[in-house]
Amino acid sequence: MRARIAVLPGDGIGPEVAREARACLEQVASLAGHAFQFLELPIGSAAIDACGTPLPDATLEGCLASDAVFLGAVGDPKHDALPAHQKPEKGLLALRKGLGAFANIRPAFLHPALVNASPLRPEVVRGTDLVIVRELAGGLYFGEPRSLTEDTGTNTLAYSRFEVERIARVAFELAMGRRRKVTSVDKANVLESSLLWRSVVKEVAQGYPEVALEHQYVDSCAMAIVTRPTSFDVVVTDNLFGDILSDEASVLTGSLGMLPSASLGGKVGLYEPVHGSAPDIKGRGVANPLGAILSAAMLLRHSLGLEAEAAALEAAVGRTLDAGYGTPDLKCGRNHVSTRGLADLVRVNV
Amino acid sequence: MRARIAVLPGDGIGPEVAREARACLEQVASLAGHAFQFLELPIGSAAIDACGTPLPDATLEGCLASDAVFLGAVGDPKHDALPAHQKPEKGLLALRKGLGAFANIRPAFLHPALVNASPLRPEVVRGTDLVIVRELAGGLYFGEPRSLTEDTGTNTLAYSRFEVERIARVAFELAMGRRRKVTSVDKANVLESSLLWRSVVKEVAQGYPEVALEHQYVDSCAMAIVTRPTSFDVVVTDNLFGDILSDEASVLTGSLGMLPSASLGGKVGLYEPVHGSAPDIKGRGVANPLGAILSAAMLLRHSLGLEAEAAALEAAVGRTLDAGYGTPDLKCGRNHVSTRGLADLVRVNV
Ligand SMILES: CC(C)[C@H](C(=O)O)[C@@H](O)C(=O)O
Ligand SMILES: CC(C)[C@H](C(=O)O)[C@@H](O)C(=O)O
Repeated sequence: MRARIAVLPGDGIGPEVAREARACLEQVASLAGHAFQFLELPIGSAAIDACGTPLPDATLEGCLASDAVFLGAVGDPKHDALPAHQKPEKGLLALRKGLGAFANIRPAFLHPALVNASPLRPEVVRGTDLVIVRELAGGLYFGEPRSLTEDTGTNTLAYSRFEVERIARVAFELAMGRRRKVTSVDKANVLESSLLWRSVVKEVAQGYPEVALEHQYVDSCAMAIVTRPTSFDVVVTDNLFGDILSDEASVLTGSLGMLPSASLGGKVGLYEPVHGSAPDIKGRGVANPLGAILSAAMLLRHSLGLEAEAAALEAAVGRTLDAGYGTPDLKCGRNHVSTRGLADLVRVNV
Repeated sequence: MRARIAVLPGDGIGPEVAREARACLEQVASLAGHAFQFLELPIGSAAIDACGTPLPDATLEGCLASDAVFLGAVGDPKHDALPAHQKPEKGLLALRKGLGAFANIRPAFLHPALVNASPLRPEVVRGTDLVIVRELAGGLYFGEPRSLTEDTGTNTLAYSRFEVERIARVAFELAMGRRRKVTSVDKANVLESSLLWRSVVKEVAQGYPEVALEHQYVDSCAMAIVTRPTSFDVVVTDNLFGDILSDEASVLTGSLGMLPSASLGGKVGLYEPVHGSAPDIKGRGVANPLGAILSAAMLLRHSLGLEAEAAALEAAVGRTLDAGYGTPDLKCGRNHVSTRGLADLVRVNV
């Protein structure tokens, strides 16, 4: 097949890991006889430097004209002083919005070879395999009115029935192909937005009688992720709670650097590792490329429909870990190799 | 000294643990020659049943006429269907507001005897000793406008300079008596309310040049609590983030049932264990009374100025744990005793 893939390397370690993910996609394409055409575009701090804005029009247009978008990472402390609407992160938020992505899928899967890299005890964490489905287009991130004065900072948390319905449906569909359990997370004992959330999720659940639904308060869920991570299958929650809980869950798996994500539901799918731009390790060749590579696998699966190729790439990551290799963030007596070195091993294993 | 203490047993295991905490206060009083007068008042689901409202006027008045307030826990699933403003939890929120409490102090201290009860690896968690200072009177919990219709649920997250200033000052003062480090947690890369928060915290920090200040995004902090809990001393954050992060931190210490809290800054101090009403274990005599007893110690210290008595009670808890006793929530080969049994041991050790 032919496909056009926009690559947005972004900031910090973004370009380093994006390069490896792209090379993996090229490898898969040449093995399977596909023709992928790549288009590199600026975003984030890199785009501010080059074009004065974190999401240039040409970048959004290029993405919308592609079959899938791969993003490295955005954010640079040198722009900390900029007002919110000019920050590098704004580029990412505007991209998600511009693509229409509303469902952020964040799997947290503990590869058996990494049990000893987790901060949790092996008997607590072994078997962890959950997916956080985070609402990505609404909630506190986008609510209006929002304002900042000398004296007050204000944001709005609002959800509409329509927004909750569509994200809940994504979660139940996903659960149908997994262990058929959905945990909906809210703060319905305090927030009106959560009361709406909970009642709409209950309605959507009626259409999925095979799926077990439980509701959890966000504070309880933050505990349960640490004390009994294996009790979760699919977790569905709002934009802010999803941001917090997915990062919390990610570290259980040995390293934040391992985790992929997909932002779906819009015109074009967006794929990015969960880790950020990590300016402290930028350019040192130690960034873990696996989150990016596994995001590329999600891209193959969800945007290009290439399930076999996606599974092959994931299996190659698994074999590389089984063979004992890793970047220095994986703290369990691995053979430490560089970003490029680890990605090379994955490619050899495809 | 003479003191008047309001006791609000509340719901679920609240009455069971409140009873033990009160008995500890009586024991301390009789040993040290103080005269404490107790006044039991209804709150939460118990108050809905008795008086039709989760915070009867007489309860708030009784609290305001006391030197300190001890609360067990609120919340009962039988009231899940009530609208938000009639729920048991509303009683707690209204009490905090009515007392004027704005600073919620939640220590998460890992007793050395409980290292093996933590879900984290010993080498990660050993030495954890942090305090979360949660803003309690503002933010998303109280922001207006708020509303729920058939189609939308809306809340408002707003902070004023004054609110941030006073909570930041509490955190820096606390840090001065500890390891002199403050971590301020926000989501300043996305939220205007966080931008205000961050800039006001920076201003307050100028008055405390001996204290090291760092800023962390809430998602990063949710990870760091699991990966490097010993790197924190005092964490200051808003109402919602504090709710989530303090629960997350609490389980590192072996059991949520261990943790005390104090809500200060208002007319009268409010003390409550961090755990909730735990309806599933209500009345079974297995609830951990230590969070309640340690909350009573905070009451002695912060509201009555009885530092020696507070320290004696805390030391008694420590000796009881050192001797290997615990309730069943402490999963590390303890000698399991009942709620009453464990509290008796603490009292013997005072
Ligand atoms: C960079 C930031 C805006 C972003 C978010 O909060 O959504 C990041 O934390 C994430 O989770 O992808
Ligand atoms: C019961 C609930 C309203 C409360 C809160 O969210 O503040 C509880 O979770 C807590 O942390 O004390």
